[in-house]
Amino acid sequence: MTLMSDRTNPNGVDVATLFATLDAVKGDPEIAKFQFRASNRWISGTHSRSRIDGFFGAKQEMTHRESKTFDADHPEVLVGKDNAPTPVEFLLHALAACLTAGIANIAAARGVNLTEVTSTVEGDIDLLGILGMSDDVRNGYQGLRVNFVLRGDDPERLREVVEQSRQRSAVYDVITNGVPVSIDVDAA
Amino acid sequence: MTLMSDRTNPNGVDVATLFATLDAVKGDPEIAKFQFRASNRWISGTHSRSRIDGFFGAKQEMTHRESKTFDADHPEVLVGKDNAPTPVEFLLHALAACLTAGIANIAAARGVNLTEVTSTVEGDIDLLGILGMSDDVRNGYQGLRVNFVLRGDDPERLREVVEQSRQRSAVYDVITNGVPVSIDVDAA
Repeated sequence: MTLMSDRTNPNGVDVATLFATLDAVKGDPEIAKFQFRASNRWISGTHSRSRIDGFFGAKQEMTHRESKTFDADHPEVLVGKDNAPTPVEFLLHALAACLTAGIANIAAARGVNLTEVTSTVEGDIDLLGILGMSDDVRNGYQGLRVNFVLRGDDPERLREVVEQSRQRSAVYDVITNGVPVSIDVDAA
Repeated sequence: MTLMSDRTNPNGVDVATLFATLDAVKGDPEIAKFQFRASNRWISGTHSRSRIDGFFGAKQEMTHRESKTFDADHPEVLVGKDNAPTPVEFLLHALAACLTAGIANIAAARGVNLTEVTSTVEGDIDLLGILGMSDDVRNGYQGLRVNFVLRGDDPERLREVVEQSRQRSAVYDVITNGVPVSIDVDAA
């Protein structure tokens, strides 16, 4: 890790802070317990808006620098007004962004030069499932494909960085392995 | 279904079009095969930007009314610049928005009066996993909790609508059951 001592900010990653964070967590694992949140309000039809603002981490309530809102809707072909992307498209954004952040961090930590990362994510979904017209078709995506293009100095090490990011990605874990979801309803 | 003939647009849901869509899919199941996509570009550090624009469905290439971009980043406590929410927070938005769109559609189709839907989604994540500091801690969320508040005329029927939305939600399916993800890398 001292390899990095002469390169304080490769790829825009503050490696010194990254390692300091790792050391801090080693000293007090409670720091690593986070809770993220979103609040959503229905607008009309299939259109709703989520706000993302506060979260808990490092043993305290925190807020993002800016509170942000994100809409979602269905396209007209799916009986919406197309005010925003569909919920299932936000899953693709989350997956690409999580893997890409990991790639940048891991490349910096390993001293692998990285100049460009782009990706496309595609997901196939057969709506016979959500329309309730087939018991054999699942509601969600049948499969996702991520295509990464990386540029840097060492293609083989870049591929290893992607593999390590996959192995440590929170979104990849959730999307491939699933997570329990509980739903409570206050209806009146 | 003819119950709805005198109410063309409850909850902002075009029920006539909704049922026409169901009839069209019954006549030609190929209409129901969709593919959604996102393309992402790394900006710096943990910051990246996804574009959501085209998709395939109803047997043709389609585009959203507007191409949209969404950033993601890590907060400063997680060695980012906090330019945008984290990738894992977009999962929460996707889940809330998908369940809420389903609630609106199903309530309209059933003739259940609905005046308000809000929700919060919380996810607990222990970063010992993604930091590689524990083999016993997963990378992703340990669990998600969704709390819905619905207002309308009939609390019991509103609860049934939420349950039906859960049973037919694409994002709920993906997040609870997981989906295979393949990753290809072009490195140079």
